[in-house]
Amino acid sequence: MPSHPPIITPMTLKIGIAGLGTVGAGVAMILRQKAALLAERAGKPIALKAVSARSQKKDRGINLSTVQWSKDPLELAKSKDVDVVVELIGGADGVAYDLVKTALTNGKHVVTANKALIAKHGIELAKIAEKKNVSLKCEAAVAGGIPILKTLKEGLAGNQFTRVAGILNGTCNYILTVMEKDGYDFDFVLNEAQRLGYAEADPAFDIDGVDAAHKLAILAAMAFSTKVDMKSLHIEGIRHITATDINYAAELGMRIKLLGIAQLAEGGLELRVHPALVPLHSPISRVDGVLNALEMQCDALGGLFMEGPGAGRGATASAVVADIVDIAAERGGTLYNVSASALKTLPVSPMKKHCGAYYIRLTVLDKPGVLADVSAIFRAKKISIASLIQKNREPNKPVEIVLTTHETNEASMMEALKKVAVLGQIISPPRFIRIETL
Amino acid sequence: MPSHPPIITPMTLKIGIAGLGTVGAGVAMILRQKAALLAERAGKPIALKAVSARSQKKDRGINLSTVQWSKDPLELAKSKDVDVVVELIGGADGVAYDLVKTALTNGKHVVTANKALIAKHGIELAKIAEKKNVSLKCEAAVAGGIPILKTLKEGLAGNQFTRVAGILNGTCNYILTVMEKDGYDFDFVLNEAQRLGYAEADPAFDIDGVDAAHKLAILAAMAFSTKVDMKSLHIEGIRHITATDINYAAELGMRIKLLGIAQLAEGGLELRVHPALVPLHSPISRVDGVLNALEMQCDALGGLFMEGPGAGRGATASAVVADIVDIAAERGGTLYNVSASALKTLPVSPMKKHCGAYYIRLTVLDKPGVLADVSAIFRAKKISIASLIQKNREPNKPVEIVLTTHETNEASMMEALKKVAVLGQIISPPRFIRIETL
Repeated sequence: MPSHPPIITPMTLKIGIAGLGTVGAGVAMILRQKAALLAERAGKPIALKAVSARSQKKDRGINLSTVQWSKDPLELAKSKDVDVVVELIGGADGVAYDLVKTALTNGKHVVTANKALIAKHGIELAKIAEKKNVSLKCEAAVAGGIPILKTLKEGLAGNQFTRVAGILNGTCNYILTVMEKDGYDFDFVLNEAQRLGYAEADPAFDIDGVDAAHKLAILAAMAFSTKVDMKSLHIEGIRHITATDINYAAELGMRIKLLGIAQLAEGGLELRVHPALVPLHSPISRVDGVLNALEMQCDALGGLFMEGPGAGRGATASAVVADIVDIAAERGGTLYNVSASALKTLPVSPMKKHCGAYYIRLTVLDKPGVLADVSAIFRAKKISIASLIQKNREPNKPVEIVLTTHETNEASMMEALKKVAVLGQIISPPRFIRIETL
Repeated sequence: MPSHPPIITPMTLKIGIAGLGTVGAGVAMILRQKAALLAERAGKPIALKAVSARSQKKDRGINLSTVQWSKDPLELAKSKDVDVVVELIGGADGVAYDLVKTALTNGKHVVTANKALIAKHGIELAKIAEKKNVSLKCEAAVAGGIPILKTLKEGLAGNQFTRVAGILNGTCNYILTVMEKDGYDFDFVLNEAQRLGYAEADPAFDIDGVDAAHKLAILAAMAFSTKVDMKSLHIEGIRHITATDINYAAELGMRIKLLGIAQLAEGGLELRVHPALVPLHSPISRVDGVLNALEMQCDALGGLFMEGPGAGRGATASAVVADIVDIAAERGGTLYNVSASALKTLPVSPMKKHCGAYYIRLTVLDKPGVLADVSAIFRAKKISIASLIQKNREPNKPVEIVLTTHETNEASMMEALKKVAVLGQIISPPRFIRIETL
């Protein structure tokens, strides 16, 4: 399709994009190349009018000579030629925060892909948006191109949720998938992922679960109409997952995935990001590579599963443009699906109260009696063993014992593992991974 | 939650439900029991004000003594106490059509779960809705509780579609799943499904693919902005699928599913409902029982997969309520995602132009030379064989030969099969099933 500036009419929705990286340029390109289709779908023309980026000279594969350029993104928030500010700068604070806050305060709609910003400042920003009667939308912030926020808020509006769980970080899922496929250990695969551009030079944000936690916090707030304090989330990453564990998981008919789970439990809302063994019959266990996926449980519908690209230029731009089209079509709604002032503060259930099944791997000296000792400790804590794998028995040599348990209480499990760890025959700290039957 | 009539305010969106079967009563119950939550989400109260059903006395598990009752559904379309008519009567014509048309003409919003009505009269009805500036919504009509229409139209608004494919009929998927699991043949499983209430007394609508075709027609019109003539769809059901084919499919690493597929091809838009072998690595192959699923391919995002309940009281009511909440929240949009008058008439590509792979099952007398004859016919038509299974060889006794082909043209395939059918050694008509690699 030709890439020409669309005709501006009094109805036209005028867009300003702050940040012309790979996603920003992708959004600009869709707005240009699909101007006629988007106008048909939205019921009015949508025109890119202004951009802000460091370099005007950089070749982005699109002719932006007819739009206004600003060095200072804040100018977009003040420009009378901008109805919607698209924030693609990133970061929880600083320029991104100033830009979004100023734009909303000036009565402009905001579309952002910034999960850290929304996880940290969402409530404050939503309140400004509601006061000014403008939209604040962030579909691209969670699960990239999967329209999960729209599905959760609008498509399932008649439902109360009991659980939202998902694979929310493509980098981790890529690493775990390659570890399983090729049998390599974590460090090697991480290096490869960095070399191929699937992982950042500083990978901590992804592999330690922080990125998934930001997304989970946003999902949980929307699904459960609650304020979410990032400090209340239990967050574990995947650094400690070994090829050995992945192999044992396969033997047990399961795969290891980094999951983000928000779930109503007896003690309140569980908010947790951690690796988990998921049985192969569960769709989420089969999500490979950089894909993301979500599984929702709610009262009227039952379960819904979605799988798609969680990152990348096209997928993220797709989500940003969907938000822009919603604004053009005047499809309103609040950030959290209820007024920000109506958000409750659900109690967060601590991990020690979690009930679930566990995978335990012990490295022991194969002396008679070791299993009896471990079993006795478990029995004393009322933990019942579901399966047991023991291989390569050689008296007085290190041997691995892998156990899975039936559902039990996490506090009991941790106490049992402390006792197991100090048994004479145990030669390295017991490893445990939770089992999730989604 | 208490089931009490909500307070009516001037803002309140007033609902009238025509048809109080299992879905209608489910919708009424959600509107009642979740009145406070829905009001929060929609930004205004939503109240059930009127119903129409044959019997007022029947126990539906909900106290409807405070709402207006009409024997005649048309009264809802004329009542000043109704803003939204929810049509749950069913049928492509007759009362359902009159009701929806009258309601729209009188400036009322309409929510319907009626796929036959929308597939047949959607364009006419959408034009009235657009003229009157009201909403006509039918999320429940396609894939039950899966919010597929919202996802396709709004969530992926920045995309052009190349394919929409899915398991759109839960009855067929249930029958195929049980045939595979228990090894029974079609007729036996159909009888069981009827006994259990998973199939209608007259099952033709489901098992001959008509129901899936209605849903595919609606999806295709929305995804490709085109008018769809039901007569232009290629429709095959599952009556001819045997346990034998399902077993061979499993041996080939595939499962047999009834698919509805709308796909851009060289000759135009392919619109087809038929059973297909789907490889196990494809998420859609693993959808079991009465569940529905969709797989979309589009240019910006790439692929998206959704799986969930395609029928049942809660799932269907969930979709109907989502439409009602959208109307209350003033989230507008057209039925087809573009104005009904802007719909194109894309050429429909005939099946003979279809390119794809095929599964062929031949029952032959095992005389020397039969494979050579079949291979020669295929070679003459430039059809290349991908795999071959031949079992239980016993000279001059019937034996089955199963072939799969690489991608070929359907016209060539049909010509080849005609020639194969008249070979001397062939003792029953060749069976073929298309292979889809979604």
